[in-house]
Amino acid sequence: MSVLKFDETPAEKVREGLERKIIFTGELMTVVIDFTDGPWAEAELPHSHPHVQTSYVASGEIIFYCEGEKDQHLKAGDIIAVPSGKKHIIKLLTTQARLVDSFNPLREDFFYSL
Amino acid sequence: MSVLKFDETPAEKVREGLERKIIFTGELMTVVIDFTDGPWAEAELPHSHPHVQTSYVASGEIIFYCEGEKDQHLKAGDIIAVPSGKKHIIKLLTTQARLVDSFNPLREDFFYSL
Repeated sequence: MSVLKFDETPAEKVREGLERKIIFTGELMTVVIDFTDGPWAEAELPHSHPHVQTSYVASGEIIFYCEGEKDQHLKAGDIIAVPSGKKHIIKLLTTQARLVDSFNPLREDFFYSL
Repeated sequence: MSVLKFDETPAEKVREGLERKIIFTGELMTVVIDFTDGPWAEAELPHSHPHVQTSYVASGEIIFYCEGEKDQHLKAGDIIAVPSGKKHIIKLLTTQARLVDSFNPLREDFFYSL
């Protein structure tokens, strides 16, 4: 068993305004992502990965863009599920937002930066 | 892509005081579980499954028990990761709590009750 106690776990600063904390077991990874530099005038560039993903909106509001799909305005409590290989990206609508992203298999690329 | 808009998605009532909403893609499932019958005097009976699991505490406070491990007092923002086959259970410390559980592979047993 692994435990991530939020207050006791140092965040990884991905860039100014974006911090994350990671936990995993087997081929399941969950990542708490805190954005603090919203609202954004534009979305970032879409990206894709072979890993399937769910994103739970813990706080804030976002627009979730996924290729070939209708844009989704999401707020706290909403969840989105992204199939393997589908290009996607978010735009932050609020100053702050927290997403809880889960991936299968592990996003091994996330370890390279730790 | 699948979208679960919390306010527009009917909850599955698992039992009095326990409702859940489910989303999945590939072999990744995420479940929002709302407990409203706490605090509990005792934990329920431990259970296990071959699926690996992460549990994000979105609100409330719980004790998380996992066989062979130290009991963990968890509150909003904390996450636990449970390996395959490990017996585990929670005890609710607050009136309400929300857990966001993710599983790999899919908890197909959850579909039988839908």
